[in-house]
Amino acid sequence: MAAAAPPPSPTATAELNMNLPTNYSLFTRIRLTGKPDVSASHKMIQQIALFERLSDQCFSTEPSFSATLISNNSPFKFVTVFLIEVSTALFPSPVSHQPKFTPIHKTLNLDCPISDPGMETFKSSKTEYAIIIAGYVLFFPNYSTFLAKPRFYIEDLFVRECYRRNGLGKMMLSAVAKQAVAMGYGRVEWVVWDWNMNAIKFYEQMGANVMQEWRVCRLTCDALQCDATTSGTHDLDLI
Amino acid sequence: MAAAAPPPSPTATAELNMNLPTNYSLFTRIRLTGKPDVSASHKMIQQIALFERLSDQCFSTEPSFSATLISNNSPFKFVTVFLIEVSTALFPSPVSHQPKFTPIHKTLNLDCPISDPGMETFKSSKTEYAIIIAGYVLFFPNYSTFLAKPRFYIEDLFVRECYRRNGLGKMMLSAVAKQAVAMGYGRVEWVVWDWNMNAIKFYEQMGANVMQEWRVCRLTCDALQCDATTSGTHDLDLI
Repeated sequence: MAAAAPPPSPTATAELNMNLPTNYSLFTRIRLTGKPDVSASHKMIQQIALFERLSDQCFSTEPSFSATLISNNSPFKFVTVFLIEVSTALFPSPVSHQPKFTPIHKTLNLDCPISDPGMETFKSSKTEYAIIIAGYVLFFPNYSTFLAKPRFYIEDLFVRECYRRNGLGKMMLSAVAKQAVAMGYGRVEWVVWDWNMNAIKFYEQMGANVMQEWRVCRLTCDALQCDATTSGTHDLDLI
Repeated sequence: MAAAAPPPSPTATAELNMNLPTNYSLFTRIRLTGKPDVSASHKMIQQIALFERLSDQCFSTEPSFSATLISNNSPFKFVTVFLIEVSTALFPSPVSHQPKFTPIHKTLNLDCPISDPGMETFKSSKTEYAIIIAGYVLFFPNYSTFLAKPRFYIEDLFVRECYRRNGLGKMMLSAVAKQAVAMGYGRVEWVVWDWNMNAIKFYEQMGANVMQEWRVCRLTCDALQCDATTSGTHDLDLI
């Protein structure tokens, strides 16, 4: 879920450079995640939780998240993760073992170079030079009764702080939308905090409808143990 | 999605009786849907659309809905439908071919008999006496990144009008919750209209949290064709 954060410090940006070429080109690639990416992906999940001050509600561990990806190794059937990578050089070769998705490439021309204090942590595995994981989108199919076909639901959309405000989020959201179209799906849905006006404005610019009258309901933990045999009369309407 | 409707007319209730026993016992059963139930299930989807004045957005047809159920014939893996049936007599025998779910039975003691003007339409197939489909819940798994495990999402929860306010909706919601617990899932979620205070009160009594700060975003139709190669800088926070 997108949420509000202060912009990165310009001072910090100036101090740590990635030795970008003089024209500040940044090569980007969206691809499916793989097993070597589990650690980096899980660190980004933790960063979302930290940012949303929900770390105490984040029970995901690297092994449990890894198990999710391993048990759902058929992309687009259930949990699917796109990573967005950046590099100061052209990507060397096609991504192997991704028969169900053609990676999306784009070259960004930036006004200034980007410093990445976490580049060692988020370096893609088995690459000879700096290909850095800059963000991810995690999504899965769900189902619209009215359309009688699946739609994609985006659970997480995240760009690491130093790479924000360069269109990477839009690239990932668009990639999910394009995948939905390719698969004949009817919709893409997600949720946003109502106070995150920047994100809402962005989503509306992308063409999304923000459903003001809907509220998400959640049953958790003990409430899930509710007694199905309890009787009761309820002043309800559709149930 | 639960929504507001006027209560059934008491006059109509008095005029059309189902010849219930003198103590007004109503036997109920929750079971997995099957192919013979497609027509009745689809009619209830149409009733939801009509009630919500969204019939123009309901593109589901009986064949397309049938295809959904047939292509997802492994319950709880994707789209799953529980039906709730009612009868004035004990259910005759166990439901066959439902190895993954044990039907839930409950006997209701009503203050007055229920008339069902649609009983012929919603009669369960291949039954010798009146077993009537009274409602359904359609749900599927999705995934919590923070929990690193699936949860169930309820797309539809519907009780036919003449059977409402007798706890059938609660029975079905509880059945989904119990199934989530049995499968080790962490949560059950759904959405509700913010003006449907009766439903919200009911859900809160069930132990649900209504997430007031979340808004559902939706990309549909032409917006899904958005250009992933479009450049842009966005004043966003996590992306």
